[in-house]
Amino acid sequence: MTSKRPYNFAPGPAALPEPVLEKAAEQMLSWGGSGMSVMEMTHRGPLFSEIHERALADLKELLGLGSEFEVLFMQGGATAQNAIVPMNLLAKNPKADFVHTGHWSAKSIAETKKYGDVHLVATAEPEWEDAASFGYVPPVSKWSPREEASYLHICGNETICGVEYHQWPDMKALGLEEVPLVVDMSSHILSRPMNFDSIALAYGGAQKNIGPSGLTFVILKRSLIQEHAPTALPICPSVFDYRKVLENNSLLNTPSTFAIYIAGLVFEWLKAQGGVAAMGEVNAKKAGLVYDLIDKSSFYSSRVRKANRSFMNIPFFLPDDRLYEPFLKGAQAEGLLNLKGHKAVGGLRASLYNAMPLEGVEALVAYMRRFEKEQG
Amino acid sequence: MTSKRPYNFAPGPAALPEPVLEKAAEQMLSWGGSGMSVMEMTHRGPLFSEIHERALADLKELLGLGSEFEVLFMQGGATAQNAIVPMNLLAKNPKADFVHTGHWSAKSIAETKKYGDVHLVATAEPEWEDAASFGYVPPVSKWSPREEASYLHICGNETICGVEYHQWPDMKALGLEEVPLVVDMSSHILSRPMNFDSIALAYGGAQKNIGPSGLTFVILKRSLIQEHAPTALPICPSVFDYRKVLENNSLLNTPSTFAIYIAGLVFEWLKAQGGVAAMGEVNAKKAGLVYDLIDKSSFYSSRVRKANRSFMNIPFFLPDDRLYEPFLKGAQAEGLLNLKGHKAVGGLRASLYNAMPLEGVEALVAYMRRFEKEQG
Repeated sequence: MTSKRPYNFAPGPAALPEPVLEKAAEQMLSWGGSGMSVMEMTHRGPLFSEIHERALADLKELLGLGSEFEVLFMQGGATAQNAIVPMNLLAKNPKADFVHTGHWSAKSIAETKKYGDVHLVATAEPEWEDAASFGYVPPVSKWSPREEASYLHICGNETICGVEYHQWPDMKALGLEEVPLVVDMSSHILSRPMNFDSIALAYGGAQKNIGPSGLTFVILKRSLIQEHAPTALPICPSVFDYRKVLENNSLLNTPSTFAIYIAGLVFEWLKAQGGVAAMGEVNAKKAGLVYDLIDKSSFYSSRVRKANRSFMNIPFFLPDDRLYEPFLKGAQAEGLLNLKGHKAVGGLRASLYNAMPLEGVEALVAYMRRFEKEQG
Repeated sequence: MTSKRPYNFAPGPAALPEPVLEKAAEQMLSWGGSGMSVMEMTHRGPLFSEIHERALADLKELLGLGSEFEVLFMQGGATAQNAIVPMNLLAKNPKADFVHTGHWSAKSIAETKKYGDVHLVATAEPEWEDAASFGYVPPVSKWSPREEASYLHICGNETICGVEYHQWPDMKALGLEEVPLVVDMSSHILSRPMNFDSIALAYGGAQKNIGPSGLTFVILKRSLIQEHAPTALPICPSVFDYRKVLENNSLLNTPSTFAIYIAGLVFEWLKAQGGVAAMGEVNAKKAGLVYDLIDKSSFYSSRVRKANRSFMNIPFFLPDDRLYEPFLKGAQAEGLLNLKGHKAVGGLRASLYNAMPLEGVEALVAYMRRFEKEQG
């Protein structure tokens, strides 16, 4: 079975580990001898509770989160969080700071303006209209943050242009020890060991490295939330009020039960692979294979500065626009799927999330070499 | 396989048709020969697009919706819609009218107060603290609606107390032709033929009659939404702005792709069963079996007025509190699961959604008869 499925380089929803899908198929009509699919289980019963608690505990363990952190499972994706974060964090002081590194930063910024006063700490926005030119993280030495901001928001990995923070900004060195750092972590959570000490809140959609779409994770320091007292803006829907969700253990309303179950299977699989340390090594190797080929070639090109290149999403370009169609057609024929770049940028893009095996990337690189030889 | 699974009377998430689960298991590693699980498909690609469009078209066909209606697939469940409805419909005029028939009405009312001026048209709320006493729909002749309200909201079926509207209020007769009727339809959509002519907006979570949790349906008349002009309150998150979701064909952000796929399989199954007309007949028969037994017995009792008894959720009571534990234990032993009543009401509850076969209800009724004989 394994060798027959194509390699899926989609940016998300994306490939899932095959053993996860096999287990999901096997348990579809009866989970653990219950005679029920997970989809059929009441979310407040002991069976789903076991699934839910194990998924939460495994995620915390994989991320190495200290006891000061809480994990919430919500709905609406990172796009909803673009509103939910400011609705929760701007009630006392409406100032939100942002670093702008691409498409997803831009969306967070635009949405936050509905709820507060947004200040751009730094921007990599090109002066001309060309989204492809988002190609770096502005150096921290050039940031102009506000000490009195309610939080500083960054997008950890920009999936469209392929720009990634390989380390978090040093908030202490920036004189921002009191400013919570908020990270959109949708597309690189669990891809490698990450230090959460300096992070106050991380959120994202699950559909890249975790599981199916329709599930949102929110990791937050408990100190961000006031117990028994309102923290959020009065217009924040109850179901998106972090404090209320936390008090109800993510069961304020019916959660995406099946997506949580699949996420749990992914967490089990990740643990069996050796956790985020092992993932980090494989992911560096996978990305290295592609970037090496690009850098040694005069045929393929990358538009991202080396220090900020994403290990998850690699946009790359061909020397002639007429070559994209044959490239994609040939790739498809070899079982290398979804390599088309985002329409905002054009070109090609290979997304190499955790579930993409090294063999898939080797197959891609072999195809790229062959294509260059034939067309270059 | 069919005869071995227990009968699941859970209030939602609830039983799914077995052929749906079988198909989902079979297609888990490769949908339609694509080599991809539906969970792995990019939501903007042609494969998922086919699944999405077919699900939308089948739902419209099953409900017999005219071309003036649009269907949106969103996230957050009915609980999120409790905020999303007023955020979308109260921008011009903050007046919202409600009929209060139980637990879910109460939640909608409380949430709406954040966004506007709420008026109770009628209430079935008991004067004493006893949720079980919600037992009827106040007669329309006693309603006091406001002609100038932005909408009138009802909960079509209260799952906890088991109170259902078997016909919609006649808005014309009420002098409310200009007032949009909004219905929380979570727990009885697709259970029988329903006339949508008088409805402006219907919403609900999918996890009762449609599919897995994590998917929300919104059915609305296009006239409720202004084209190219803001309709919603400025603080409405973009992803919950009906106009924006509609303009993006429910792909403003990544939707719950797998849940939409399962919903589509349920719609196919419903069509094969004969659609809502056939469902309505079976559901009436199923509910009739249980209510008949209750009414003929002095052992079992219902607390809901006959005209407003739900065909989906049947709460019932035993003459002695000490009998609940043996009843539930005996039921479990016979493969009759999740019959415990909601904690707000106590007692027992049988939820008989579309996926509960007649045989399941016959098995329940046979067990109830036997239990009465043994204990009565």
